[in-house]
Amino acid sequence: MTALKLNNHKILDCTIRDGGLVNNWDFSVQFVQDMYRGLSAAGVEYMEIGYKNSPKLLKGADAGPWRFLNEDFLKEVIPNKTETKLSALVDIGRVDENDILLREDSQLDLIRVACYVKDLEKGLALIQMFHDRGYETSLNIMALSHVMENELHEAFQLIAKSPVDVVYIVDSYGSMDFTDIDYLVTKFQRQLPEKTLGMHMHNNLQLAFANTLVGANKGVTFLDSSVYGMGRAAGNCATELLVSYLKNPRYELKPVLEIIQNHMIDMREKVEWGYIIPYMIAGALNEHPRVAMAVRDSEDRDKFAEFYDKLTSPEMNFPSKIKK
Amino acid sequence: MTALKLNNHKILDCTIRDGGLVNNWDFSVQFVQDMYRGLSAAGVEYMEIGYKNSPKLLKGADAGPWRFLNEDFLKEVIPNKTETKLSALVDIGRVDENDILLREDSQLDLIRVACYVKDLEKGLALIQMFHDRGYETSLNIMALSHVMENELHEAFQLIAKSPVDVVYIVDSYGSMDFTDIDYLVTKFQRQLPEKTLGMHMHNNLQLAFANTLVGANKGVTFLDSSVYGMGRAAGNCATELLVSYLKNPRYELKPVLEIIQNHMIDMREKVEWGYIIPYMIAGALNEHPRVAMAVRDSEDRDKFAEFYDKLTSPEMNFPSKIKK
Repeated sequence: MTALKLNNHKILDCTIRDGGLVNNWDFSVQFVQDMYRGLSAAGVEYMEIGYKNSPKLLKGADAGPWRFLNEDFLKEVIPNKTETKLSALVDIGRVDENDILLREDSQLDLIRVACYVKDLEKGLALIQMFHDRGYETSLNIMALSHVMENELHEAFQLIAKSPVDVVYIVDSYGSMDFTDIDYLVTKFQRQLPEKTLGMHMHNNLQLAFANTLVGANKGVTFLDSSVYGMGRAAGNCATELLVSYLKNPRYELKPVLEIIQNHMIDMREKVEWGYIIPYMIAGALNEHPRVAMAVRDSEDRDKFAEFYDKLTSPEMNFPSKIKK
Repeated sequence: MTALKLNNHKILDCTIRDGGLVNNWDFSVQFVQDMYRGLSAAGVEYMEIGYKNSPKLLKGADAGPWRFLNEDFLKEVIPNKTETKLSALVDIGRVDENDILLREDSQLDLIRVACYVKDLEKGLALIQMFHDRGYETSLNIMALSHVMENELHEAFQLIAKSPVDVVYIVDSYGSMDFTDIDYLVTKFQRQLPEKTLGMHMHNNLQLAFANTLVGANKGVTFLDSSVYGMGRAAGNCATELLVSYLKNPRYELKPVLEIIQNHMIDMREKVEWGYIIPYMIAGALNEHPRVAMAVRDSEDRDKFAEFYDKLTSPEMNFPSKIKK
């Protein structure tokens, strides 16, 4: 509807990796192949196919194979690449260097490191290793809404010296609004003028797509999304919204609609994500969604007022009576 | 989370009036009373309790009583007003002047006139009549995204001479983004500097709340919303999001959460509204949701790709073969 000149962006669809947090990565190979085919036809630039964490370093043996990507398996699932690149995410302390092939031998193009600001140097060490092996890299500092300004500035100084390609603004708690995004993007652009920027938003306050557009309009190029918004708790910016909205002629909405009708509607019957009140409350209070996720998993799942009281009354949160 | 100085706003909750489009206004008196009690406790300034259309001028005898507000009935339902005012909406050609009491004899404070720009003079005539009877009035021009600039400018000239209190920017098709809102609000402010402005957004592209904030941040004061976003098709900006976000200390989130858990969760099991793909498609294509509503009411309700083809292929929309 508008004349926004948004055509230098890269959509990074993380349905499998982030959506897997909802269903324990229980996606069939067929599903992942349909996703890759559909996202390729849609013009989406990257698909995040899972984690490159090591099963030896992280419990979760019953999770789907996308939790611990194995290169041989990956080559069976996606033997032929399209223009759509593949990415994987890693966590601090979960990477076994021996699992990491040279990029030329891997199906993966981009490896993303997620960490909290306190683990930044570990994160940058991993980035260096992936970079040296030929991969595109990104750094995703989580929970930015809980990071003090001085700490962020120290982080920028380290990041600026790193070879990392993309630096992300991550709204882990889904608590940010357009003024926060404006503030952070401006700050990242000023402090890291050489870096490409990315955004990873959550939809606790129904602002994931809106925030993504605000950032995109300021020059952020990597835009995370997931099909039908499937992602942990409140979920993400929806891929179909981005593909529909961005003006770059490479994007086609219909293949994404096909993924939704063929897979996501049924999936949403079995597991939940999206605009759900406990996640809205956690986002509004700038809290980690874990307490909300726990309440959704209990019989108190629909007791919203009680949950709100719990999160806003310190004495109810932390009973400190000594057990006799 | 931010330092926005947003405390001169008026939240107008239209759950009953707009939500009624979803369930044929089948709300119990208990529900409406709970809504009024809850919204009053939440600090919401206006509750739109239905239409003041005349049943003699509009079919729909089986609709709930909120479709055709009767003043005696209204006094039984809400015998005692709180600080929360009551409003009603009317359509062109549906108003029987004989039904309209003087404001001092009515429970209603504000009457809102919705019309398309082609019926503006009829709308302003109704406004004059309501104004003369002592009501606060608003003008809600629908489908602004389908109105050409020259027509809008002519409309402004007429509106400027009217005693109407509030002039609304209505995104009937849920197709607008922040640049559209910015453009329209600026235009309305320049052309109608004496008027108070309002916003009524729809959530086809998950932008209802975001757009409302953009407008609020530019000085729009009347902000329409509904509890849990309940409204026609994709629904509205959610009242709980506004009440939570706006910094005015009068607002309390918990009473809205109670309404949601006591009423809206069950209601959402029975009828649908919100982010639903055919409404997303219609919004993205700046089309009236009626075609999407029809498909949701059919067995093709989840055939999104097919629906998208239908809306984007002229030859499939209007077969013009002469019937032999």
